[in-house]
Amino acid sequence: MNGSMILFILGYVLRIEGLLMLPSAAVGLIYRETQGWAYLAVGILCVLLGTRFSRERPENSVFYLKDGCVATALSWIVMSAFGALPFMLTGEIPSFTDAMFETVSGFTTTGASILTDVEAMCHCSLFWRSFTHWIGGMGVLVFLLAVVPLSGGSHFNLMRAESPGPSVGKLVPKVKATARLLYLIYMAMTLIQIVLLAFDMPLFDAIVHSFGTAGTGGFGVKADSFVSYSPYSQWIVTIFMILFGVNFNAYYFLLFRKFRKAWEMEEVRWYFAIILAAITILFLDVVRIYGTAFEALTHAAFQVASIITTTGFATADFNLWGQTSKVTLVLLMFVGACAGSTGGGIKVSRIVLQVKTMIREMYSYIHPKGIRSVKMDGKPVDNGMIHSVCVYMITFLLLFCGSVFIVSLEGRDLVTTFTAVAATINNIGPGLELVGPAGNFAMLSGLSKWTLIFDMLAGRLELFPLLILFHPSLWRDSFSRRAH
Amino acid sequence: MNGSMILFILGYVLRIEGLLMLPSAAVGLIYRETQGWAYLAVGILCVLLGTRFSRERPENSVFYLKDGCVATALSWIVMSAFGALPFMLTGEIPSFTDAMFETVSGFTTTGASILTDVEAMCHCSLFWRSFTHWIGGMGVLVFLLAVVPLSGGSHFNLMRAESPGPSVGKLVPKVKATARLLYLIYMAMTLIQIVLLAFDMPLFDAIVHSFGTAGTGGFGVKADSFVSYSPYSQWIVTIFMILFGVNFNAYYFLLFRKFRKAWEMEEVRWYFAIILAAITILFLDVVRIYGTAFEALTHAAFQVASIITTTGFATADFNLWGQTSKVTLVLLMFVGACAGSTGGGIKVSRIVLQVKTMIREMYSYIHPKGIRSVKMDGKPVDNGMIHSVCVYMITFLLLFCGSVFIVSLEGRDLVTTFTAVAATINNIGPGLELVGPAGNFAMLSGLSKWTLIFDMLAGRLELFPLLILFHPSLWRDSFSRRAH
Repeated sequence: MNGSMILFILGYVLRIEGLLMLPSAAVGLIYRETQGWAYLAVGILCVLLGTRFSRERPENSVFYLKDGCVATALSWIVMSAFGALPFMLTGEIPSFTDAMFETVSGFTTTGASILTDVEAMCHCSLFWRSFTHWIGGMGVLVFLLAVVPLSGGSHFNLMRAESPGPSVGKLVPKVKATARLLYLIYMAMTLIQIVLLAFDMPLFDAIVHSFGTAGTGGFGVKADSFVSYSPYSQWIVTIFMILFGVNFNAYYFLLFRKFRKAWEMEEVRWYFAIILAAITILFLDVVRIYGTAFEALTHAAFQVASIITTTGFATADFNLWGQTSKVTLVLLMFVGACAGSTGGGIKVSRIVLQVKTMIREMYSYIHPKGIRSVKMDGKPVDNGMIHSVCVYMITFLLLFCGSVFIVSLEGRDLVTTFTAVAATINNIGPGLELVGPAGNFAMLSGLSKWTLIFDMLAGRLELFPLLILFHPSLWRDSFSRRAH
Repeated sequence: MNGSMILFILGYVLRIEGLLMLPSAAVGLIYRETQGWAYLAVGILCVLLGTRFSRERPENSVFYLKDGCVATALSWIVMSAFGALPFMLTGEIPSFTDAMFETVSGFTTTGASILTDVEAMCHCSLFWRSFTHWIGGMGVLVFLLAVVPLSGGSHFNLMRAESPGPSVGKLVPKVKATARLLYLIYMAMTLIQIVLLAFDMPLFDAIVHSFGTAGTGGFGVKADSFVSYSPYSQWIVTIFMILFGVNFNAYYFLLFRKFRKAWEMEEVRWYFAIILAAITILFLDVVRIYGTAFEALTHAAFQVASIITTTGFATADFNLWGQTSKVTLVLLMFVGACAGSTGGGIKVSRIVLQVKTMIREMYSYIHPKGIRSVKMDGKPVDNGMIHSVCVYMITFLLLFCGSVFIVSLEGRDLVTTFTAVAATINNIGPGLELVGPAGNFAMLSGLSKWTLIFDMLAGRLELFPLLILFHPSLWRDSFSRRAH
């Protein structure tokens, strides 16, 4: 393993994180909150510590996939640990477990909270919480790639380890250019949303909610999430949640006027089809509850967009809706958004690929000798990709079952246990029952919280970059190589 | 498709089913119940109809895997439809949907019941219910293979389509000999259990419960399942449930004194390890509830054996146990028994193979060029097998989610909805809440019942033999070939 390079990257990430804390300190200055000092102090600490480790670029620039995975996993852990410090210093979240939970939930764009009274938080902490969503949505390392010149395969292997979904980094041959372009699109869309929301709510709320939407996170500033905002704001957020759940490659194609290529993206078409179907189902189920059809449609569309993009905002306590709606929402939790978006979950492309693989298997029973390839976007998908999607699913399931078992030791009801894990591993936020939109994760035990912290990180990093840290062969080889 | 051969097989199956109804008629004679006539009448009808279609062996003996699948799926559907007739004729289950549910639940060894008062049934119907378990446990077509000389690949392709688990039919080169041997072991074990149980309960109860255990079915004769029987009987049933969940190849090896080969069966060792771990977890969770440690151990062992082997008997209403126990039991529902046993579920070998595949994937991240094969029983598993296990899992999941969605239209609580599907697709019987050990499936709507009937059949036939009936290419090709 290229330890010196990994340390260099960790140092750089810490430096960037330190700088990213300064806006929160500025918010403290604007609102005259003393808590701003905590952000300034931790920010400076991060910059100093980070600079210490990233002063010189290491000579050994050989950087394998495993190095990319380890650097990514450790970056996210270090980032979260330092990101949790301000919450503890301000005294708003005194426990380290809770502060870590909140920060990991922020960076992984989950939005699950241990806060029982979010409205009691100071502005700078509220800003930092939502800003972590925005940073985590696109990925810190992608940001790093956009600004730091690295070499020796670092770019591709870092990007591969951090980006959501099975196919990434094939857009532009130069990863650095891609990373910059992606961040530009991301910033532009966020800005547009801020402007549109600012017509209807205070600028601070508009900024914070746009961060939450862009990163498909879900942290807000009110105890009732989006219930008390106007239908105008709710629809703006609905539309932007859906837009941020689209594979960003589509925007790339649109930007370069390759409309046909954008239209040919099967995943995006399926994504919209699923959203339409789910909104219809929920609308039919909740239209009895609400006064007007428009109100029912607003709530149905908002909740579907919020769950499939794994954002987690809510305009209604869907915990009180009918069973069909609940089951649909739970299924959507697992579907997730498009690959290459800021959303979590299993991803639409994986689901589509699986359905196609299943149909091919049926075909192979009928024609054992007939060879038929699974096609995506009109092109045949190679078997290696299908295999890795299958293995991903299986690993996901095993991790899911293991987590449900550990959380069940709490003794909470089955639905709480099941959806607490589903809402964190898929980076959504709220589940059902005790962890529903009107509840929070505060009452869970330390063991459950750390399990869910692990699940949030595993879900965001697409399992393997985090899991391989626990494979003995990773460490055995590193030590034996060092011994030589 | 070889339609004439499939018709021939269906006819033969019907003939056998007719004969298999005679014992129920005899039970009616013994207990002087008029309902016995229904079984005699339907039995004769089956034999006559069956003989009509299976008088001459068709000339075309070419028999592909798809023919095997179609023959198997249709056999099970036809068998269930005719098997449901006596219930309707005796007036005990007047609705066709309900009678079909009960019969499919019997043949697929599920044991989920729509009866609200099982103790009101006559002896011949109780006998028939449990006898369907016994027939379905080993498979009707395996029985057919044991007695009918077929040719042209029919044997292997029929066996492959009906047998549970990924690896079957490789034991003895001659399928017919294997089929006979398997049925002999099956009969002998059932007989031993009947004798052991007869010391402690009426012979009728002993026979019926042994059928339910051998087929890992779960239909009993009392409303409270096994609660009121003595600990002696409960332990006998516990042990035999576990034995019938073992891969029958192990018994084959033991019979031929190949002890080392039996010991080397990794699946069986994992099966016992999982059982031991689960009993320990449940014991620790329920020891507070029960008076003595022995009582707690009895209940824990019985429930674990009943669920992992997918039998479904109960000595306690585990719906009232703690969450850890419930989650463990729900996870066991999906694990299931060994491949090549009479049990259902995903099967231990598939789970083990998946864990190993996951670990190999982690390894491949660390050593992208290192090639490592997944090993089972000390031998490398080829990638085709791994692929088909993965595809099986994915298909299972898609079917599971789709079924949960349809059943959710009922508006029952999430746990009932989820476990109703889990308990039927895995061929277990009872789930939790409304469909728990103290409940039944009677209150479900027709749509839900038919969905669950489909799931029971799909689960028992390992998905694809049933699913391919819905693949257009199966029918398109048959018609176009006939046109030529």
